[in-house]
Amino acid sequence: MGGYFDHNATTPVSEAAREAWQEAVERHWHNPSGLYREAGAVKRLLEDLREELADYFGCEPERIVFNSGATEGNNAVFRGVGGGGRVLLSGVEHPSVRDAASAMLGERVAELGVGASGAVEVETLMGELEEGEIDLVSVMAANNETGVVQPWRAIGDCCRSAGVRYHCDGAQWVGKMSMGGLGECDLVTGSGHKFGGPKGVGFLVLPEDGRELFAGQRGGPQEGGYRGGTEDYPGIAAMMAALRERVKGEVGAAENREWFEVELKSRVDGVRVVGAGGERLWNTSMLVMPAHPNLKWLTRLSGLGFGLSTGSACSSGKENPSHVMEAMGLGYDEMGRVLRVSSGVETERADWEALLEAFEAVWGQLESGERPRGSRSLAEI
Amino acid sequence: MGGYFDHNATTPVSEAAREAWQEAVERHWHNPSGLYREAGAVKRLLEDLREELADYFGCEPERIVFNSGATEGNNAVFRGVGGGGRVLLSGVEHPSVRDAASAMLGERVAELGVGASGAVEVETLMGELEEGEIDLVSVMAANNETGVVQPWRAIGDCCRSAGVRYHCDGAQWVGKMSMGGLGECDLVTGSGHKFGGPKGVGFLVLPEDGRELFAGQRGGPQEGGYRGGTEDYPGIAAMMAALRERVKGEVGAAENREWFEVELKSRVDGVRVVGAGGERLWNTSMLVMPAHPNLKWLTRLSGLGFGLSTGSACSSGKENPSHVMEAMGLGYDEMGRVLRVSSGVETERADWEALLEAFEAVWGQLESGERPRGSRSLAEI
Repeated sequence: MGGYFDHNATTPVSEAAREAWQEAVERHWHNPSGLYREAGAVKRLLEDLREELADYFGCEPERIVFNSGATEGNNAVFRGVGGGGRVLLSGVEHPSVRDAASAMLGERVAELGVGASGAVEVETLMGELEEGEIDLVSVMAANNETGVVQPWRAIGDCCRSAGVRYHCDGAQWVGKMSMGGLGECDLVTGSGHKFGGPKGVGFLVLPEDGRELFAGQRGGPQEGGYRGGTEDYPGIAAMMAALRERVKGEVGAAENREWFEVELKSRVDGVRVVGAGGERLWNTSMLVMPAHPNLKWLTRLSGLGFGLSTGSACSSGKENPSHVMEAMGLGYDEMGRVLRVSSGVETERADWEALLEAFEAVWGQLESGERPRGSRSLAEI
Repeated sequence: MGGYFDHNATTPVSEAAREAWQEAVERHWHNPSGLYREAGAVKRLLEDLREELADYFGCEPERIVFNSGATEGNNAVFRGVGGGGRVLLSGVEHPSVRDAASAMLGERVAELGVGASGAVEVETLMGELEEGEIDLVSVMAANNETGVVQPWRAIGDCCRSAGVRYHCDGAQWVGKMSMGGLGECDLVTGSGHKFGGPKGVGFLVLPEDGRELFAGQRGGPQEGGYRGGTEDYPGIAAMMAALRERVKGEVGAAENREWFEVELKSRVDGVRVVGAGGERLWNTSMLVMPAHPNLKWLTRLSGLGFGLSTGSACSSGKENPSHVMEAMGLGYDEMGRVLRVSSGVETERADWEALLEAFEAVWGQLESGERPRGSRSLAEI
């Protein structure tokens, strides 16, 4: 898996998560709503995990809803906004935020521009809040395409002062960076598969007040009545096992990524790193290559055993260019040359070195018009 | 697990499902939207499973959406109804149908009564359809509390003739009975964990026309654009492995259940079986005990190592009595004495015999005022 540089799309399931899942499906597969002893045990284990997650966020366990992931959570958030005022989204939100907001709120949605670094400027937000008639502000913790970190603590403070609800999409933050303080945001969403947990499981942190507005799935008293449906205890246990490792272990460091960016610029003349001026996650590089369409780069890199992407997996396959790149002022031509590199906790210096060599080789091939040789899988690197 | 008689609440995860999950998280954990070879392989495997499920239903693969389960699907159905006419639900639908419909459609929801056997009478439905102004009919395939089978083929025919959409909640049917013909219903919902798959994964069959109305989760082009969010391929592969076994293997037979009911009536005088007059699933007995509150029965049976329920796990913990029992004409007093027995494909004659003995023992204890002895777990039986 050393050639895998698409961790912002999804991560391999950690050993701890796999073991937790297996143990749960063997011993604790019962329905937590059951009235026999084994079912009661699952219910207690589930509530223990809710307390653990609440501790990481620094909030009350009653605010935690386990669900199928950030997309479900983001949909529940915009379905529950209520009121009739404006809803402000940063220009770089994930498609599950943008599409849910626009489907449910239509013209109430207003865009909060970002600076050249890709981050929301707090002064801009304060100006909007002063204008009033805002029911919700939604700004992610860190961007999936560029890794640019948003000033979510300051945004939260501004919203609190203005008495406006703040939703923070934490899908790319949780499991990569310290979660402390995130519980102060009114609403937080995330997905286990972004940090070594399985797909199909995630969480939604509900506000202190008005939780009932955000009850996303009707039917059954599960999750405090805020999300009907049999609780996926094995999935939740696996997600929490993965998160526990991330919280207790060393978080990743940016030094290998920094080294890679410097070296790449020296070997492929004209490479640009998007959002490099501001604070970024330790694992992400959004590159604008100097020439050749990004799909050509991807195909050749894939042939050499490297998995990268052009941006959000959730917008791949769409013909329109990235709204994130657009919001950050990239031209149409540049957008066709972006490549996202996103590493994981298991990525080592040698993996970055191998990636650098692959970039150099593909650059040579593309410039000389040479055809690619052979083909390897990610696992062989 | 021989003492486990709550399969309508959830089933143990089958060996085949566990193996499929493990294999998928080891080899096919990549994001199917990725543009490298391994991601493309996951996408192809996912589409193969979609075709397989469509084959079982007898419908086009384009109509299949994989999701987190029947509750999500039922919510998507009622969110998507459109129009302004009435929406008819049988009086015995699952809480995720009732609650979703009433939250989203309020007074547009009308109840379709059931006969004494618990089944919808087709003549009643035809009368309603003739009155007109109906946008959707929702009648489940089989009831979770009683196992009573609804005449869903005939209901589908009537709805088709009247040009009204028909939604069939297949959660208790799929994996227990033959799926052929279910694809003729416009909308079908279900959950993997009801037939040996993992929790947190299920499906929604969309109509031939007007699919876009039922796009439940916004964000991302996954699942044909009808359900955003990274596809849970490992969960889907596990669900399909479980379903494959059920489709290819012997479906369960009612003979052990029939034997149990006859014997129980002879040993515990005054036991009544709800819905016994009509067609039922092979695995379910809804019993009205002649005396003593059902929670006392459950506690004592649990102490002897047997897991049963009072009805739907999705309504346990609620104080109100079962709407299913109410719709079937049970008195308030009787509702406090109901016990649901639901077996699985792995339940053997010896398990039924042991359950019978346990019922007899508890009956003796309760009648004599004797206190229970010891306590065993389900696995010890």
